[in-house]
Amino acid sequence: MRNICMTVSYDGTAYSGFQTQPSQNTVQDYLEKALLRLTGEVIKVTSSGRTDAGVHSRGQVINFYTAAKIPIERWCLAMNTLLPADIVVSGAKQVAMEFHSRRSAIRKTYRYTIRCGRHPDLFKRHLEFYHPTRLNTDAMREGLLHVVGTHDFTSFCSERSTKLSNVRTIFEAKLECDPPDAMLESYAIHIYLTGSGFLYNMVRIIAGTLIQVGEGKRTSEAIRTILEAKNRAKAGPTAVPHGLTLWEVSYNEDALTLDCLSDL
Amino acid sequence: MRNICMTVSYDGTAYSGFQTQPSQNTVQDYLEKALLRLTGEVIKVTSSGRTDAGVHSRGQVINFYTAAKIPIERWCLAMNTLLPADIVVSGAKQVAMEFHSRRSAIRKTYRYTIRCGRHPDLFKRHLEFYHPTRLNTDAMREGLLHVVGTHDFTSFCSERSTKLSNVRTIFEAKLECDPPDAMLESYAIHIYLTGSGFLYNMVRIIAGTLIQVGEGKRTSEAIRTILEAKNRAKAGPTAVPHGLTLWEVSYNEDALTLDCLSDL
Repeated sequence: MRNICMTVSYDGTAYSGFQTQPSQNTVQDYLEKALLRLTGEVIKVTSSGRTDAGVHSRGQVINFYTAAKIPIERWCLAMNTLLPADIVVSGAKQVAMEFHSRRSAIRKTYRYTIRCGRHPDLFKRHLEFYHPTRLNTDAMREGLLHVVGTHDFTSFCSERSTKLSNVRTIFEAKLECDPPDAMLESYAIHIYLTGSGFLYNMVRIIAGTLIQVGEGKRTSEAIRTILEAKNRAKAGPTAVPHGLTLWEVSYNEDALTLDCLSDL
Repeated sequence: MRNICMTVSYDGTAYSGFQTQPSQNTVQDYLEKALLRLTGEVIKVTSSGRTDAGVHSRGQVINFYTAAKIPIERWCLAMNTLLPADIVVSGAKQVAMEFHSRRSAIRKTYRYTIRCGRHPDLFKRHLEFYHPTRLNTDAMREGLLHVVGTHDFTSFCSERSTKLSNVRTIFEAKLECDPPDAMLESYAIHIYLTGSGFLYNMVRIIAGTLIQVGEGKRTSEAIRTILEAKNRAKAGPTAVPHGLTLWEVSYNEDALTLDCLSDL
């Protein structure tokens, strides 16, 4: 048996999220169907974490065990031939047997994108939350500083979450405008959050609250007081899923290293 | 009556082209349905030219006559409320009664986009022709020089064209890489062609032939000999429609000026 790790990008628009469901219309279902056709094995893939319906991925990571003898450099192309056009495997490697795409992950980055302008950007309408008026990005940047560090994120977590602890660490939070010239008629605001882990809807609730900061409905200081309240009702709305992309998942190099190179 | 001119962008993926057809699934049909709901009038729009199924537009220009008294600054938003999300009116102005979006046009720019890389760009897969290997963009740039000027473009015109003359003038032709660093693993090649007018499939046949130049199957000099042959069979294949975007249509300022400003 080998443990194969893959990086998977997808446009989430057409799918009911990542994780398998009775509807079968999930990214995981399509990956497993492709693996069945490729290897003849019924394979269950493990991911770094589920993504909701409409949420995209640039760098989702999965792993699975297989007895198939296909050389590692052939997996990407073989999988992409069998997958729909909106799911792309962009990398594959053989990893240590104990590697687990969720448990071995040390940090994860999400990006949330907001389009400000008179009109949505037609060609990115599935990838951006559309906001018709300008937002105060300086205030949003200041607000974002308050989420960095180790906090109880109960206020920024869906009440449907079942996690025992809502304490998480955000290592880095940044806001970038594209193009950088904020005087333009139409621009995208990208919010990047990198952390040890994320609670259910956490990035979308932070984004929804920051939009209110950008609108002047809340101060940037409010982010701190919302955190302290540990009460979901104090934060802003959950921003729409289609602005969210799972950007990157990082691992210790050790976790990725093959225990037995002679298997290659 | 007023003559209203609009700039219309659309993602052509879901449509059977711009021009109205019995299927009713065209951009023109949706524009005319929106105008009917907005004004109560059965309005026929004139465009700068049709685009084929799957072809996109950033700057299609239309005009139409109406008795509706809606102030000009309200038209964009009102139309966008009534149009599907993949058609956006990005500008509207009242123009001289004799303005005609096709006959008054003095130049038009098309863009053809090719993605080179190990994988298609997932989020631009409807907007780019995907080519799995690198292309020699220097040779393509050289080949492109030969189409600039006034030529008989019979070799680069679909045999289904019914135009009396195949002589057209290309004012400008350029090739840009995005990002500009050609050593990258994945990059887009944008070919921009600006001319007095274009024959049926002309940009797509030029793009299809230039791709062969980029592959080394033809020399850049071949573009000149193909032009001279005046024979469609000498040129390369017609590149897929989804790489093509009607980029911009230009008019003399005079043509756009209102004859009677008191109408505003």
